[in-house]
Amino acid sequence: MLTRIDHVGIACRDLDATVAFYRKTFGFEVFHEEVNEDQGIREAMLRINGTDDGGASYLQLMEPTRPDCVVARFLERHGEGVHHIAFGSADVADALAGAVAAGVTPVIDGLRTGSMGSLVTFLHPKDCHGVLTELVQARAVDRPDETTPEAPIGSDA
Amino acid sequence: MLTRIDHVGIACRDLDATVAFYRKTFGFEVFHEEVNEDQGIREAMLRINGTDDGGASYLQLMEPTRPDCVVARFLERHGEGVHHIAFGSADVADALAGAVAAGVTPVIDGLRTGSMGSLVTFLHPKDCHGVLTELVQARAVDRPDETTPEAPIGSDA
Repeated sequence: MLTRIDHVGIACRDLDATVAFYRKTFGFEVFHEEVNEDQGIREAMLRINGTDDGGASYLQLMEPTRPDCVVARFLERHGEGVHHIAFGSADVADALAGAVAAGVTPVIDGLRTGSMGSLVTFLHPKDCHGVLTELVQARAVDRPDETTPEAPIGSDA
Repeated sequence: MLTRIDHVGIACRDLDATVAFYRKTFGFEVFHEEVNEDQGIREAMLRINGTDDGGASYLQLMEPTRPDCVVARFLERHGEGVHHIAFGSADVADALAGAVAAGVTPVIDGLRTGSMGSLVTFLHPKDCHGVLTELVQARAVDRPDETTPEAPIGSDA
């Protein structure tokens, strides 16, 4: 049902400096950048490898765009570091239903738009041994119920 | 140089309970278990997906075996949660040299044996925007300088 580590989300204070760090130190390049107003973040996706389900694994670097967003509060409490792990599924609604049936509480109601036009939900860390866990369904270009109007630049979803 | 997210390391208080959580909630199964006396951990590797460099991505669940180990101290300070991210390389010594040349400080001197007979090193989180970063070279069965005598059960490295 969950077929890949889709990404690891990392909270940072300065997106450009963090992107520069990963490029200089490890050679990772930016695959995609966007602002998610809903989540209050500016983000860069660094594509690390392809996965055998036809997707890919990324680092998601996130800088808050406002002081009251989740990532800003995380930075206040914990400083920079890993914020969440995201697992990819071909059917995020089904994956969510399975997790809820197993006793896990979602952080949000229903599904939201994540990076690169994906559909996402988040599961509460208290139910997941301390790990804020995201479930992701990559954007299908021809998905009939697609709600994101434009294809993200550089998206392979 | 770094060609995959090799694993995400997660600190937990009760390995068996955490394994049971991931199995029940997401269907992830244990690929490999071992005790690393050097690091003071009992660990389970859950294989999530294959990667396009010929390797795989795992969750590494880690329970401390003694109160003075790194993971036990992490649990005291932070509770359960993500402890580190590990990137895979075909040549970990070369990847380490590149990171050091970029100004990053290793946590340990030289290379150690990690999960499933791999060679690993760790980079200091203060130099990596808050992320304890591991570099991993998977065990090659015919590696001439192999120092781990027995092949790990279930290893695909």
